[in-house]
Amino acid sequence: MRVFAEQARQRAVEVLEAHGAPAPVAAAQADHLVEADLRDRPSHGIQRLPTLVGRIRHGLLRPAAVPELRWISGSLLEVDGGLGLGPPVAFRVLEALVGRARGCGISLAAIARAGHLGMLAPYLEWCVERGVLVVALTTSEALVHPHGGRRPLIGTNPIGIGVPVLDGEPLVLDMATAAISKGAIIAAAQRGVSLPTGVAIDASGMPTSDPVAATDGAISPFGGAKGYGLGLAIQLIVGTITGTAFGEEVTGTLDTTYPVTKGDLFLVLDPEFGGGVEALRRGSAFLAQLRGSEPAAGSERVWVPGDRSRRTRAVRAASGYEVPGELWSQLGRLRRAGAGGEPVGLSRGGDVR
Amino acid sequence: MRVFAEQARQRAVEVLEAHGAPAPVAAAQADHLVEADLRDRPSHGIQRLPTLVGRIRHGLLRPAAVPELRWISGSLLEVDGGLGLGPPVAFRVLEALVGRARGCGISLAAIARAGHLGMLAPYLEWCVERGVLVVALTTSEALVHPHGGRRPLIGTNPIGIGVPVLDGEPLVLDMATAAISKGAIIAAAQRGVSLPTGVAIDASGMPTSDPVAATDGAISPFGGAKGYGLGLAIQLIVGTITGTAFGEEVTGTLDTTYPVTKGDLFLVLDPEFGGGVEALRRGSAFLAQLRGSEPAAGSERVWVPGDRSRRTRAVRAASGYEVPGELWSQLGRLRRAGAGGEPVGLSRGGDVR
Repeated sequence: MRVFAEQARQRAVEVLEAHGAPAPVAAAQADHLVEADLRDRPSHGIQRLPTLVGRIRHGLLRPAAVPELRWISGSLLEVDGGLGLGPPVAFRVLEALVGRARGCGISLAAIARAGHLGMLAPYLEWCVERGVLVVALTTSEALVHPHGGRRPLIGTNPIGIGVPVLDGEPLVLDMATAAISKGAIIAAAQRGVSLPTGVAIDASGMPTSDPVAATDGAISPFGGAKGYGLGLAIQLIVGTITGTAFGEEVTGTLDTTYPVTKGDLFLVLDPEFGGGVEALRRGSAFLAQLRGSEPAAGSERVWVPGDRSRRTRAVRAASGYEVPGELWSQLGRLRRAGAGGEPVGLSRGGDVR
Repeated sequence: MRVFAEQARQRAVEVLEAHGAPAPVAAAQADHLVEADLRDRPSHGIQRLPTLVGRIRHGLLRPAAVPELRWISGSLLEVDGGLGLGPPVAFRVLEALVGRARGCGISLAAIARAGHLGMLAPYLEWCVERGVLVVALTTSEALVHPHGGRRPLIGTNPIGIGVPVLDGEPLVLDMATAAISKGAIIAAAQRGVSLPTGVAIDASGMPTSDPVAATDGAISPFGGAKGYGLGLAIQLIVGTITGTAFGEEVTGTLDTTYPVTKGDLFLVLDPEFGGGVEALRRGSAFLAQLRGSEPAAGSERVWVPGDRSRRTRAVRAASGYEVPGELWSQLGRLRRAGAGGEPVGLSRGGDVR
């Protein structure tokens, strides 16, 4: 069925408030899920709500939690999310980071015990609108095999980077270090279509385009050994600095059973302490040059990361978008606290970037 | 001809001292070049010396320069390399960064006007040996086309990440965001062999395995759109924070004609301000699990980034390694200040990671 963002947002707020989320917390989480759907990333959209509700019911998420922010030095912020929902914790942290970066150029937050952050792009855009650079690193459940290996031991560990420019649209890069999402594999299995080559292996470690075989195997890192190295480095940096889990010990973003043990890092830099307005101006010119450069044969044009997502969002914000009717009905039921609701659709069995 | 590291180091020191480098500067630069050859990365080895000498002769590098380090806030260091050679500038900066990170957990240096840093791995290892995490980002000449485009507008912009662990070998990731180095393309053209698929395009923007056609075209980013996004993000972060050049305006690491306009960033984090010894211990266990995990069919074993390079270095340190006789003779002549010497071999026409 077709919905508009405001309808979806309202329904998500009602579900969250029915399960104990204070109004600002419900609004932040609901906005964030809807932002993912607006960008046509349903795996991070409102289909996550039943899982979030299940986690709240099992005491694994505390929607009324107040995160503890502690500056342990001028630029370093330690955050205990207190099992709060990811987006409200993250925005509270970013507010502190941006304020600090404006005073001294750099700030970094190490976050433990916050709920799943969801799509990174909205955080990046929020920072970029405030004129600062941002790098986000997070860990996630082990679904990706090491290069040359066959067991899923590494998360899809995304990296997000936002860089403002003076004129025109900025760079907003939000990418997993996996070649494909678990959600896309499940969706391919449900529709009976093949996977692209090179994105997954079967249980014996052989590349496969069969999504069912891939479900028993592992997702491949993007870009071979280099993508593997990057995803692994993100795991080690985040785990070491936040004191959170490594590899198979990462739990609690896909399930309704286990505590959240992943970690998140945000680094914020203020260009006023760097190249300043002149650098932002030259950044604009460079991105304009890229966007205007000759496309390769078969390519429509050259995009900068974030461009297509921005365009998709504008279309869907104006015209609405489809959500599964079954999910919409389930969310309707979940607006009553205590009503039953197991995850449906792609979120069943784990659906991560 | 076969040489041992100490011979190569001695010859490089003599060349550099003959061209005005003070002994510690010559030693740092010579060590760094030899470290690349020891790791079988000749594109960053002593074959770079004729280019460095050419740059010194043209006043584009000042081997006796003293870099200016200025702390502009508690964790933020601004560095004017003063056209000094890359490795001595970088190690001086890292010394300052590590000291500062031990006091407050985090430090970042924005470096402009330093010579080519060369291979990143030795900097990463130096930091990791001191128990800190490090991320290095640098920009380089535009050789890589944007995803969906055909013109070389982006550098091979490498990223380096080093993470210490408690026991066993650490992660040392040193990778370009290009699918192949310019040096490897030139070498393939010289030997008349084909390139792997997907690493380069010809002048019309079509993928090519012909190294001669690739020379007129561009190198592809590794990992498609994601690798493109990452390389571009590195360009924007480094250019914006260091106030250095973007895209085609980056010059001065391959040539003997233009000023150096690239920039470098180093971020250092002290795990004592993060997860501490317990996190380092769990990091060790995680890397041991990866290294001991089942290989895929056709794979010898699972490696952690840095493992193979470490092994290669040990073999070549013990047994010596081959260098082109022509290069060795040229370096012999260059030990006399003012002796002629244009770059030979792969370094002719530009050879970057």
